[in-house]
Amino acid sequence: MANITKKVSWSSRGDESGAAGEETPLLNGSEQSRPLRQSLDYDNIENQLFLEEERRMSFVAFRCLEISRWVICGLIGFLTGLIACFIDIAVEQLAGLKYRLIKENIVKFTEAGGLSISLLLWVALNSFCVMWGSIIVAFIEPIAAGSGIPQIKCFLNGVKVPRVVRLKTLVVKVVGVIFSVVGGLAVGKEGPMIHSGAVLAAGVSQGRSTSLKKDFKIFEYFRRDTEKRDFVSAGAAAGVSAAFGAPVGGVLFSLEEGASFWNQMLTWRIFFASMISTFTLNFFLSIYHNKPGELSNPGLINFGRFESEAMEYNLYEIPLFIAMGAIGGGLGAFFNFLNYWLTIFRIRYVHRPCLQVMEAMLVAAVTATVAFIMIYFSTDCQPLGPDHTEEYPLQLFCADGEYNSMATAFFNTPERSVRSLFHNPTGTYNSLTLGLFTLTYFFLACWTYGLAVSAGVFIPSLLIGAAWGRLCGILLASTTSTASMWADPGKYALIGAAAQLGGIVRMTLSLTVIMVEATGNVTYGLPIMLVLMTAKIVGDYFQEGLYDLHIKLGSVPFLHWEAPATSHWLTAREVMSSPVTCLNRIEKVGTIVDTLSNTSTNHNGFPVVVQPAKLCGLILRSQLIVLLKHKVFVELARSRLTQRKLQLKDFRDAYPRFPPIQSIHVSQDERECMMDLTEFMNPTPYTVPQDTSLPRVFKLFRALGLRHLVVVDDDNRVVGLVTRKDLARYHVGKHGLEELHLAQT
Amino acid sequence: MANITKKVSWSSRGDESGAAGEETPLLNGSEQSRPLRQSLDYDNIENQLFLEEERRMSFVAFRCLEISRWVICGLIGFLTGLIACFIDIAVEQLAGLKYRLIKENIVKFTEAGGLSISLLLWVALNSFCVMWGSIIVAFIEPIAAGSGIPQIKCFLNGVKVPRVVRLKTLVVKVVGVIFSVVGGLAVGKEGPMIHSGAVLAAGVSQGRSTSLKKDFKIFEYFRRDTEKRDFVSAGAAAGVSAAFGAPVGGVLFSLEEGASFWNQMLTWRIFFASMISTFTLNFFLSIYHNKPGELSNPGLINFGRFESEAMEYNLYEIPLFIAMGAIGGGLGAFFNFLNYWLTIFRIRYVHRPCLQVMEAMLVAAVTATVAFIMIYFSTDCQPLGPDHTEEYPLQLFCADGEYNSMATAFFNTPERSVRSLFHNPTGTYNSLTLGLFTLTYFFLACWTYGLAVSAGVFIPSLLIGAAWGRLCGILLASTTSTASMWADPGKYALIGAAAQLGGIVRMTLSLTVIMVEATGNVTYGLPIMLVLMTAKIVGDYFQEGLYDLHIKLGSVPFLHWEAPATSHWLTAREVMSSPVTCLNRIEKVGTIVDTLSNTSTNHNGFPVVVQPAKLCGLILRSQLIVLLKHKVFVELARSRLTQRKLQLKDFRDAYPRFPPIQSIHVSQDERECMMDLTEFMNPTPYTVPQDTSLPRVFKLFRALGLRHLVVVDDDNRVVGLVTRKDLARYHVGKHGLEELHLAQT
Repeated sequence: MANITKKVSWSSRGDESGAAGEETPLLNGSEQSRPLRQSLDYDNIENQLFLEEERRMSFVAFRCLEISRWVICGLIGFLTGLIACFIDIAVEQLAGLKYRLIKENIVKFTEAGGLSISLLLWVALNSFCVMWGSIIVAFIEPIAAGSGIPQIKCFLNGVKVPRVVRLKTLVVKVVGVIFSVVGGLAVGKEGPMIHSGAVLAAGVSQGRSTSLKKDFKIFEYFRRDTEKRDFVSAGAAAGVSAAFGAPVGGVLFSLEEGASFWNQMLTWRIFFASMISTFTLNFFLSIYHNKPGELSNPGLINFGRFESEAMEYNLYEIPLFIAMGAIGGGLGAFFNFLNYWLTIFRIRYVHRPCLQVMEAMLVAAVTATVAFIMIYFSTDCQPLGPDHTEEYPLQLFCADGEYNSMATAFFNTPERSVRSLFHNPTGTYNSLTLGLFTLTYFFLACWTYGLAVSAGVFIPSLLIGAAWGRLCGILLASTTSTASMWADPGKYALIGAAAQLGGIVRMTLSLTVIMVEATGNVTYGLPIMLVLMTAKIVGDYFQEGLYDLHIKLGSVPFLHWEAPATSHWLTAREVMSSPVTCLNRIEKVGTIVDTLSNTSTNHNGFPVVVQPAKLCGLILRSQLIVLLKHKVFVELARSRLTQRKLQLKDFRDAYPRFPPIQSIHVSQDERECMMDLTEFMNPTPYTVPQDTSLPRVFKLFRALGLRHLVVVDDDNRVVGLVTRKDLARYHVGKHGLEELHLAQT
Repeated sequence: MANITKKVSWSSRGDESGAAGEETPLLNGSEQSRPLRQSLDYDNIENQLFLEEERRMSFVAFRCLEISRWVICGLIGFLTGLIACFIDIAVEQLAGLKYRLIKENIVKFTEAGGLSISLLLWVALNSFCVMWGSIIVAFIEPIAAGSGIPQIKCFLNGVKVPRVVRLKTLVVKVVGVIFSVVGGLAVGKEGPMIHSGAVLAAGVSQGRSTSLKKDFKIFEYFRRDTEKRDFVSAGAAAGVSAAFGAPVGGVLFSLEEGASFWNQMLTWRIFFASMISTFTLNFFLSIYHNKPGELSNPGLINFGRFESEAMEYNLYEIPLFIAMGAIGGGLGAFFNFLNYWLTIFRIRYVHRPCLQVMEAMLVAAVTATVAFIMIYFSTDCQPLGPDHTEEYPLQLFCADGEYNSMATAFFNTPERSVRSLFHNPTGTYNSLTLGLFTLTYFFLACWTYGLAVSAGVFIPSLLIGAAWGRLCGILLASTTSTASMWADPGKYALIGAAAQLGGIVRMTLSLTVIMVEATGNVTYGLPIMLVLMTAKIVGDYFQEGLYDLHIKLGSVPFLHWEAPATSHWLTAREVMSSPVTCLNRIEKVGTIVDTLSNTSTNHNGFPVVVQPAKLCGLILRSQLIVLLKHKVFVELARSRLTQRKLQLKDFRDAYPRFPPIQSIHVSQDERECMMDLTEFMNPTPYTVPQDTSLPRVFKLFRALGLRHLVVVDDDNRVVGLVTRKDLARYHVGKHGLEELHLAQT
């Protein structure tokens, strides 16, 4: 296990990534010489400097801060919308170009009889695109691989994933997703939007770009983890909103994944960002489509209009929907199972960037080939109606005025295929086409997820589900005599899509709202909800959700919503790390340097005590490093009275990339100096007695977003420290409560 | 102030209501002989008995509990939907009867010329209905007055309002709202649904009815405040969902008002209850309307279908919408201002039930008279088209084939009037009609809110706003040459309705979603949001929201989302109550009885200490009372070893109506006995050091739902106790941070 977790995809170049101390043990290989990254510390900014600043602030200043927050959220929404718009237009143009090229070629060779040349062209074009998409991901920024949703989940949960909100990641993500979608992979462009929104938010809210070495000297107040995380929630919500045209769904996504303490104003701002994001996308896409003002493109994916009248459902259909939910759950679990082993295989054998690029190209080539073969051998010809919606109808071997139905499913961006499955009239596809398509696409999508390309799993899941859902509808219609009753297979396609997606990702509330918003029809709320619930229950029986699996593979200390059931018998005493390295309030510099350098005590927070071991504060590794860097020693302060005092600004300037302890030179003389931590430590850290039960400790962590909780005895003496990892170890397994083996560092 | 707060409407019969100790000081008049009601204590159930039960529970038991929770939520949703259905049908039938009667009468007397008889009939019918509605509220259950939303807000916030979730309250609420709406008052039936859902939830989740003395012996695990409150959130959400057909809005309402710690599974269950609720209502109403399966009535109010094509808006209209938001904010503040003084007047002079009934009847009579006069003098005749939607078109003095336009606004249930204003084609109303209607209805609605009748303020607000909004639309169309641009005044009616409602209630996120769901059109999301934001900002400048004003008048310790700005300089030391009455771990019964009887120390939680003053636990008043009642004395335990031990069940059976200390007889001998609190106290209460800043204490309270926070010194000795009231005192006023004078008891 330890072997595996050393090399998961998030950190496949872990040796180059700095890593937080206790938080991401897997990343803590040989990077002692690399810059350490600070984990998120929500609990520990309230030192004297901070309080003094807050006390100096007037009401007007508070008001200004509040307004800045709104402005930032507006900006986040606007920029996220713009990026979504850019991706959409780029994909449409490039994919259009590609499909036109291939179509012309196929038409040319259908008569002449050299279709293998068309196949080669198709394969070459796809592989070429995917190669570039994969190269930038594998060689430049591996963290941009995949949808980024697991990473954002971790980030919002409080685990710091290195480089996840960097500008470089954003660029690679955006360019990469364009290449992968144009390259014809079984992927969507929606997942990456969430990541993109989050990166944008992190960047905008800090008022500077560390990568570009550009500091706008604005929003300096927000340069701390709590504030940054709030904005990242807004960014993720804006991303969801732009991806699915679902502003409320976006807010709920952020809440579901990120929020622990629910703040009304924050949620309201998140909603604002979401609204602006979908509006921006809608506005610019309307202009692009030459219909300014129509505002009919609220999201990247457009499920099309479900008319209530045509799409009614009856009470007795609900059991059918639930059954479909169960199928979706089962198929989803199977998908996740396959992908899990594939990922482990990849971690073991495909961890070199060039191998990753080659695998991606192979998948692209296989996808094109399979599609071509399926289309070639398909005999499902459909008449080309006057109001056909297919953009690139392929006639191939069909009669004049007809087109190949299999081609509409493959020879299109996946978003359009989903829409066709939802809305094309009855009889557009025959059962064999749908069955074969489901089968092949299922395995292709499963193979694709986890490649070193930037891509999402939402759309492939929807597509698989829509295909077998529509198949269910057709089969139902053919087995019952009252055919009119089941007239619309599109309804079943929708339910199938929800079931499959739910079975794979296991999101609940937010996914329901996203689906409802994307269909624009509230009538389907209850069925979709029931389907997603069933899919989740059935799926969870077999296997965790896809994102959770990938998080687990990262073995990060991810905290779920509640302490595992039946963990009441565990107390803080049993959970805590002990003994703890404590510092004295006035401590020798040498001791501090040694403590920080000691790899076996790589905590990020240190209790500060007065003799005998009585707790008086908590100080962070990052704070100590800034103090050492500025040589805030008692002796020096006396000798250089004129020197300016260390200010909050010095901490903010260093945030978030604090130098490692090794980079700070401390001379032998200085080691003998003393440092007074009083002003810089948090004087009132949260504490619990030793007998506190695990669920209670857990609740404190989740509700307050804690990172460190000091365990004290009856006399307020430090006896231990509970960190996030101590809690994340426990989970409910098959044999009751189990302890996970999170890689110890 | 103290005088006022003694007699606010929630507790206008405060002398008959039991009241919690420190939590609702206003209710703490002469009720020492009445049963004391326990305030919500989320923090303090983790005593040894509870932990032992949890430890004994297997995974299967936990699973069963989880399933029960879902079943309860489903039941809550179903029953809430049924109640909504019942109210809707009853109102429709009775109001239809009334309007037909009056219409026939008017038609008869229009020709003959004795319309004053019609007026008398109208006044008599209205007053009669309102009389009954008011009698049951004023004499049977005063807490059922109004919409119940402020009360539910307080309940979810953690303040226990006496009798608010009783069965009797529910019955009075439901019957009362039917009478008030049929009685033609300027009220809606939506607000009370929220309260009804909450009561249902509280009842169903406890598996028994204390009022009916019926215990089903199920769901006993849920007989504690934390669990009950979770279910009440679900009930409130189900109520919103049924009222507006807005399941997501319902969830967000619950979160906005209630949740502090956001739990995914809980929210998911709340959503389930909401969905079931709207579905049930929809299903039964569809059957009632003879269109089974059509499911076109998701809520009590139906805004009708807004077609995207007809109702587009342009970018340049957004400033107009924002301006309308500002108007709504101003008008809303004015409304609240008037209602505030009216409420104070009522508290002072109209506090006897019979006076309250008479006032309600007066309002009913005046409403009918004003409506009649307006209709009588109106000259706004409109042609009766073939597809007219008016149910009771009044011809009156109009030509044949025409009807009186003013009558459609008044002579209808408010819900229908709102819909007409949204959807009737251009030219249905002239400006004068709308102007006069807005003016009169504004004052009528303002006078009506706060009467001793069960009624909501949502619909009247929407109606006022729709009227002036439509007026704005008409005026805009008439001032610009390009009339077609502003063709649809219905759009402006919608915006006006949102602005007015936002200006009065100041809800934000949830109201946006409710409005969007009720219109069924996501396109309007952004404008509605901007309008609501503007209305809130402008309104807040002048006056608080209506619900907040009424909460303030109740002077309950309501905690807002965040500590007031610039309160960082306050520390726990300054905020806490001190000295605190502490109990020893093994305490003399006499001391305990004296402590509980002492009215000056009417805390609900007492720190338990071992000498010298070292904190070792926290015990609640209610727990002590149960202990005293069962005479759990050390001496008795020794002598009666065979007697069964006190179990968790004994506490649950007593919940939530614990007897007052006076009702427990303790003999002089028993007073000398000792009680061992070890097993019953919470051994690990949350504590903070004295120097903790107010925002930090506040966050602990909000995030963990605390009621008591023990303040300790460096040696873990108790130095004070922070309660909810200590925190609620501070707020930001015109001169910076101010201390509220919450009535001290």
